[in-house]
Amino acid sequence: MDTETIPDHGERSFEHSPGFLIRRLHQIHLALFAEECSGFEVTPVQYSIMSVIGEQPGMDQSKISTEIGVDRATLASVVARLEANGFLRRIVSRLDRRQKLLTLTARGKAMLIKMQEPVQRAHMRTVAPLPPEERELFLTLLTQLVDGGNDYGRAKLRLR
Amino acid sequence: MDTETIPDHGERSFEHSPGFLIRRLHQIHLALFAEECSGFEVTPVQYSIMSVIGEQPGMDQSKISTEIGVDRATLASVVARLEANGFLRRIVSRLDRRQKLLTLTARGKAMLIKMQEPVQRAHMRTVAPLPPEERELFLTLLTQLVDGGNDYGRAKLRLR
Repeated sequence: MDTETIPDHGERSFEHSPGFLIRRLHQIHLALFAEECSGFEVTPVQYSIMSVIGEQPGMDQSKISTEIGVDRATLASVVARLEANGFLRRIVSRLDRRQKLLTLTARGKAMLIKMQEPVQRAHMRTVAPLPPEERELFLTLLTQLVDGGNDYGRAKLRLR
Repeated sequence: MDTETIPDHGERSFEHSPGFLIRRLHQIHLALFAEECSGFEVTPVQYSIMSVIGEQPGMDQSKISTEIGVDRATLASVVARLEANGFLRRIVSRLDRRQKLLTLTARGKAMLIKMQEPVQRAHMRTVAPLPPEERELFLTLLTQLVDGGNDYGRAKLRLR
């Protein structure tokens, strides 16, 4: 067996690399979200889309892409699924027929309200291993990185 | 148009939620990795697998699953692709025929060495928006969260 190893050039090992750790934390969050929100059959991205529409009813579909950082093709297919499930309505704008304005149905609003607590628990549990003051610090640093790297990734995000 | 909004119960808006920010930072890292490593046609997960094998030649395939936090089915398909591309070899263990021992080929080793700098740049650029001392702090907090949430996510990870 060949036992020659790759020289590491003094770099930190891959499992301490930012990208690797971020991928792992994202997986952990998805698992916690799935655990807290089992039975709702709504994914984190679907939930984000419904939250945006809940906060800004009548929003143009193409704007949501920027708002949550999902590319247009993915967004279109997720929105179509949410509409098929009766959570939202798409209305073609009378002022500009290229715009599709989205609003939640009563069913969508009820779902969003029912999911609020479990979603909040999933977010809390994601940062729970840190003491409370470090959670805030972590979120501040994370926000700075997302703001700073905003030109990269699938779609630009506007952080308010 | 219905303009009733969803009450926010005083919670922070979804775009400041940990899970949402983590997903965005992961997207940003993938974009930076793709930009730095374009031409190599190796994904971050493939690179992680090759790194583990490079550091521990002859490693059992089933152990890599735990090592990098990828479930066995995904791992098997990624390993098969890396083998088809001539980057690694799978050898059935003579001591335990259920074990598949992985080693990099010369081509795999050369690829890993060629990719080391661009990968390092992608990792650096992911945390570059923070001042240097805060980068270390961010990675420390991130490592604590991954360690703490290790029971969740697709496969347990052993951080050394």
